[in-house]
Amino acid sequence: MRIYDIIEKKKRSEALSEAEIRYFANGVSNGEIPDYQAAALLMAICLRGMNEEETFLLTAAIAESGEQIDLSAFGEHTADKHSSGGVGDKTTLILAPIAASCGVIMAKMSGRGLGHTGGTVDKLESIPGYRTTLSPEEFCALVKKNGIAVIGQSGNLAPADKKLYALRDVTATIDSIPLIASSIMGKKLAAGSKTIVLDVKYGSGGFMKTPEQATALAETMVRIGKKYGRRVAALITNMDVPLGNAVGNALEIKEAIEILQGGGCPALRTLCLSLAGTIVRLSLGLSEEEAMRRVTEALDSGKAFETFCRWVGGQGGDVSVCKNPDMLPKAPFSLDVKAEKSGYIFRMNAELVGESCVLLGAGRQTKEDVLDLGAGIILHKKAGDTVTKGDCIATLYASDQARLENARSLFLSAVTYAEEPQKMQPLIYKIIT
Amino acid sequence: MRIYDIIEKKKRSEALSEAEIRYFANGVSNGEIPDYQAAALLMAICLRGMNEEETFLLTAAIAESGEQIDLSAFGEHTADKHSSGGVGDKTTLILAPIAASCGVIMAKMSGRGLGHTGGTVDKLESIPGYRTTLSPEEFCALVKKNGIAVIGQSGNLAPADKKLYALRDVTATIDSIPLIASSIMGKKLAAGSKTIVLDVKYGSGGFMKTPEQATALAETMVRIGKKYGRRVAALITNMDVPLGNAVGNALEIKEAIEILQGGGCPALRTLCLSLAGTIVRLSLGLSEEEAMRRVTEALDSGKAFETFCRWVGGQGGDVSVCKNPDMLPKAPFSLDVKAEKSGYIFRMNAELVGESCVLLGAGRQTKEDVLDLGAGIILHKKAGDTVTKGDCIATLYASDQARLENARSLFLSAVTYAEEPQKMQPLIYKIIT
Repeated sequence: MRIYDIIEKKKRSEALSEAEIRYFANGVSNGEIPDYQAAALLMAICLRGMNEEETFLLTAAIAESGEQIDLSAFGEHTADKHSSGGVGDKTTLILAPIAASCGVIMAKMSGRGLGHTGGTVDKLESIPGYRTTLSPEEFCALVKKNGIAVIGQSGNLAPADKKLYALRDVTATIDSIPLIASSIMGKKLAAGSKTIVLDVKYGSGGFMKTPEQATALAETMVRIGKKYGRRVAALITNMDVPLGNAVGNALEIKEAIEILQGGGCPALRTLCLSLAGTIVRLSLGLSEEEAMRRVTEALDSGKAFETFCRWVGGQGGDVSVCKNPDMLPKAPFSLDVKAEKSGYIFRMNAELVGESCVLLGAGRQTKEDVLDLGAGIILHKKAGDTVTKGDCIATLYASDQARLENARSLFLSAVTYAEEPQKMQPLIYKIIT
Repeated sequence: MRIYDIIEKKKRSEALSEAEIRYFANGVSNGEIPDYQAAALLMAICLRGMNEEETFLLTAAIAESGEQIDLSAFGEHTADKHSSGGVGDKTTLILAPIAASCGVIMAKMSGRGLGHTGGTVDKLESIPGYRTTLSPEEFCALVKKNGIAVIGQSGNLAPADKKLYALRDVTATIDSIPLIASSIMGKKLAAGSKTIVLDVKYGSGGFMKTPEQATALAETMVRIGKKYGRRVAALITNMDVPLGNAVGNALEIKEAIEILQGGGCPALRTLCLSLAGTIVRLSLGLSEEEAMRRVTEALDSGKAFETFCRWVGGQGGDVSVCKNPDMLPKAPFSLDVKAEKSGYIFRMNAELVGESCVLLGAGRQTKEDVLDLGAGIILHKKAGDTVTKGDCIATLYASDQARLENARSLFLSAVTYAEEPQKMQPLIYKIIT
């Protein structure tokens, strides 16, 4: 088999065979296929597409390209959640303890972020003492005891995806549904949970710009998961505005704790309950009403917050910080950003808000960057809110004044105003099961 | 400017600007654009196409990526010829001295072959003493004196094309008219001749499989040449069967001499006269009839052969070999291939005949391979001929028996038989001016 012939075949819009797809995934993974040939094939896939069977096969080839985690010792109720990226997305921190409180096993490996803010494990590291690396024995013991543990991704999960993703990122071959779906689902299949709930974003802060594109991606991923014997659902959610009011690592931990303590931004609370409810419904085989009743009860009774504290404490985190989030790392400098006009905030471009956060030090520009865990943004106003010129719309946090000034100009460019109130997109567009 | 954005733009089927095309060609040429990004863009160009303006700009960018030869000291009558590859194509060896005998200046740089047999300069090296490398002063003096000199391509002619071609060759992005046309014409523009005559092949031995595809490529190349102020024409010719009876370096020199001495294969003679006639017509501004009269006269009077001898002698070649071609390098072993059936030869697949030649040692598989100048094939029968089982249809030449046996099986697979005579494709399909 020659990669040249596989490229030529896809260029002619023909469907690739299982053997060809495995040859490609394995050859990329073990370095036998050079980047330039992989890049040519990725572009051909991007422009010629893949049918459903090819997409299934590519997903399986990615999942099987490295280690596959066996969670069967934890029984049938294991669950995982994936979010397709977003600004201020701290839902895992909230829904995982809610679902665990309802009897779902959340044995989660989470990535570090290369983007607007850190990933879930980066955020968790802002809790003093929290260990994101555990031995397999420690990890299993904690999952058994608390029903939940969250660690950093191990070295060899879906290595084909790591190489392909890095290549797609520099060759303008990101926006292909077969490639996105097989990348996400390949990793999730390898991670071993029986239930997979996907939060597929659309809007300026996500991969998919329209709800229709996000729906097409979500439907493909749900079909892949079912094909390989998982219980899967997807929420299509709006990411035109940042999720919640906090963007930045420690700031997001604090906001997650607020929600777990019964307060916080109503939209964020609603999304976390919907995601947790979907996980509980699929994992435990409940009706939607019963699942929503249980997750709401878990949150409102304080059980979910207790689970959060046991989880963090179990992984070495300082539990007193959970009870007093003002003890989290804080940036020494801050700057209030004032409204430039009176009227309504028309848009607050999530992508630009995210990029402002990178300038503040809260996100990585290269893999080697060290995050400033205290840096970030608190939004006081969001799209749809009325403002009077000079109102404080956001506070920026950073370790020096220069970063604040740089981020301020970019943040202001994210905000547009209107004279009339605007119809806002609902946060949850639809749920696909 | 970022190559990522250029790839993204072409992926969306948008036309690239002059600045973007130059950034690409120069970045590939100087190594600043990595191969995987160039490969992604090449595949996007292959599948999304380029409009005529983009194709013109890419050609100019390739031509200007390195040294550009200035032949203006030789006046207005400089001419060059390009053949889009073929098996047994020795036309340059014949048409160049014919055209030079008629007053055209043939100051030609020719490539080495990576394919079925060597390129023109490889073939010329089978003449003892012939030097393919000359100082610029020697080259100019010989062109002034004899109207003709043929040397190997210098190091830095169209370096962007060298890199792009190598990458296209391994990423299945060869068959794109904008990429083929800009590659060929970029080199020809840089080579500096005022007149460019193209021999565009179609059939099993060429890039283009049908006369329609070859015509589309030829029309694009003719428009490019005219756009940049050259006199250009293209012949569309059939390459389903090898050209002439000899395939192999010294064997082709011998066949060229036969034609120049008034004998040889009539189809080869006709094609050489047509190509030379077109060169003379464009270069000297003559009517087709007058040009054909002059080239036929040059050939039949022996003037062209005299020019050939002066040319070869001028570059150090042993002129006695021209007069007695049996002194050319000869392979020590030969093998007659017999017809397996009686009837008509239906096809003699030029590509497979060419690959048999590589097995015999007459062509290169990698750039480092040393050619066996005496190796090759003499065809005694060709497509359309009647044969009786056991007739000798070809003789193979090589330096050892094992090569002969290997090549024999491949050669036999190139030949198919028919019971009825077949209608043959004409050698020249059309001429585009």
